[in-house]
Amino acid sequence: MSLPVIQPSRSADTGPPIFMKIGIVGLGLIGGSIALAARERWPSSLVIGVDNKDVLETAMRLHAIDVGADDLVVLAEADVVILAAPVRQNVELIRELANHVTGEAIVTDTGSTKRDTLAAAAALPSRLTFVGGHPLGGASVGGLDHARPDLFRTRPWILTPTSQTSEAAVQKLMSFASALGAVPELMSAEEHDRVLAFLSHLPQLTVSALMNVVGGAVGASGLALAGRGLVDTTRLASSPSDIWRDIAASNRDQIGPALDALIAILQSLRDDLPHGGRLSEVFANAARWREQLADRSTL
Amino acid sequence: MSLPVIQPSRSADTGPPIFMKIGIVGLGLIGGSIALAARERWPSSLVIGVDNKDVLETAMRLHAIDVGADDLVVLAEADVVILAAPVRQNVELIRELANHVTGEAIVTDTGSTKRDTLAAAAALPSRLTFVGGHPLGGASVGGLDHARPDLFRTRPWILTPTSQTSEAAVQKLMSFASALGAVPELMSAEEHDRVLAFLSHLPQLTVSALMNVVGGAVGASGLALAGRGLVDTTRLASSPSDIWRDIAASNRDQIGPALDALIAILQSLRDDLPHGGRLSEVFANAARWREQLADRSTL
Repeated sequence: MSLPVIQPSRSADTGPPIFMKIGIVGLGLIGGSIALAARERWPSSLVIGVDNKDVLETAMRLHAIDVGADDLVVLAEADVVILAAPVRQNVELIRELANHVTGEAIVTDTGSTKRDTLAAAAALPSRLTFVGGHPLGGASVGGLDHARPDLFRTRPWILTPTSQTSEAAVQKLMSFASALGAVPELMSAEEHDRVLAFLSHLPQLTVSALMNVVGGAVGASGLALAGRGLVDTTRLASSPSDIWRDIAASNRDQIGPALDALIAILQSLRDDLPHGGRLSEVFANAARWREQLADRSTL
Repeated sequence: MSLPVIQPSRSADTGPPIFMKIGIVGLGLIGGSIALAARERWPSSLVIGVDNKDVLETAMRLHAIDVGADDLVVLAEADVVILAAPVRQNVELIRELANHVTGEAIVTDTGSTKRDTLAAAAALPSRLTFVGGHPLGGASVGGLDHARPDLFRTRPWILTPTSQTSEAAVQKLMSFASALGAVPELMSAEEHDRVLAFLSHLPQLTVSALMNVVGGAVGASGLALAGRGLVDTTRLASSPSDIWRDIAASNRDQIGPALDALIAILQSLRDDLPHGGRLSEVFANAARWREQLADRSTL
């Protein structure tokens, strides 16, 4: 499919607010960081948070939001609504949201998989102005307490328009992402889900599996001997399982083949242990890709 | 088997040099760091390096050694000889060394697997005073240029004596390791090789395999979207294949089952993708082990 070629508006970095009323549903690391960044960038805009009362209280204390409520009804007047809850919840929220906002409001999300929210929006009888989104900021620790206004700076912010998506809506969201310091990237939802299966979902599952095997085999006393290598390699192993159960389920058709490919290479290394020819090949490729990663990464 | 209970000598941190003539064969990251640390700690000791002429020149320039040669003959008078070449080379060196040093000299090594050097030493007609060793310092980049005198500080330095090993030799090496800032640990060679298969060898093979799959699937442009998670996870992927081919070959009976265990968990995650029950279990265990790792690590 061909994607629209759209440049972010030049006014993004200097002009008036892109959105006067910004609704954010789910104030975790990502939603909270968007809230903080938006309030810092556009003091005259209103940031409306939706979450449970405890989280709202924290968000008010951190000056992340102007107003908050535990009900979507508060978003009736929002110009943009950003769904930043876990993936499966976002799908539910899209359906509910259709009862609360007009077609004028732009709705986007921040979920780690994109086909599911897109399908949910497309299936609605009265269509929302929906653009799938995924800001690739992130940290090893989640939650509102770790939110930072600069979380997205220099990081890709993927948007996944379809041929039916309003170009004006895409342009506004690109300007919004740019203004928060991110680098907007357009991609189909299918491509996003395929690429993220390899860049993010496969590494996460691999590290969690690895930490199981290593911890189970050597125990706490053995772990005391671990070096920097294992410590760096397994940093992702403290990720929360609820978020990842959702991601794995919603992207299983892409994650499955990724896991198969990894298992096949591990099996070939195992079969070749006495010889090492396969190991040399795998290591040479790995070193080359790792160099590309170090060169290309904006981190 | 029961290991001798030996405390490092109290004189380690205050007394005279433990060894007057310290021979080091192989001046890479580990050998070079031992050389730098020994020269810093005992200015009156003589540090003798053995490597090729280029490396020796660098070592002299870095003040890592007092004298150097490309032949083991220079070690005839050494009180201790530390073999710090790659694993397979160390095995050859032990056999050669028997022609150059007396039984008075203590010989140890720094290799990542321990049964092989131990077997090589035990098989010699005239027995060396050999104690297997493995200082667990390390960095993501190898080579003499990255050597540092503090590489071993607070890190475990494993020694693998057998029931036939001279207790005096073990005690001297423990004092030596302590004096360089490391924490000496006694362990059988079998246990060492089993534990390191999980702590180091399995993670290395896994990360190299993962980097292959990810790079191959998304290419350089996809890698530009990578987040901190992938960057941390794959740091080991630039490790040199020659060193690792040796390690894999010499510890294959331990690495094989470790790879099998990992493959089994990955396969169970793959089979369970739509449900997520297995994922919750694997993630919960992983998070718990990772916390232990963070608590226990001396890094």
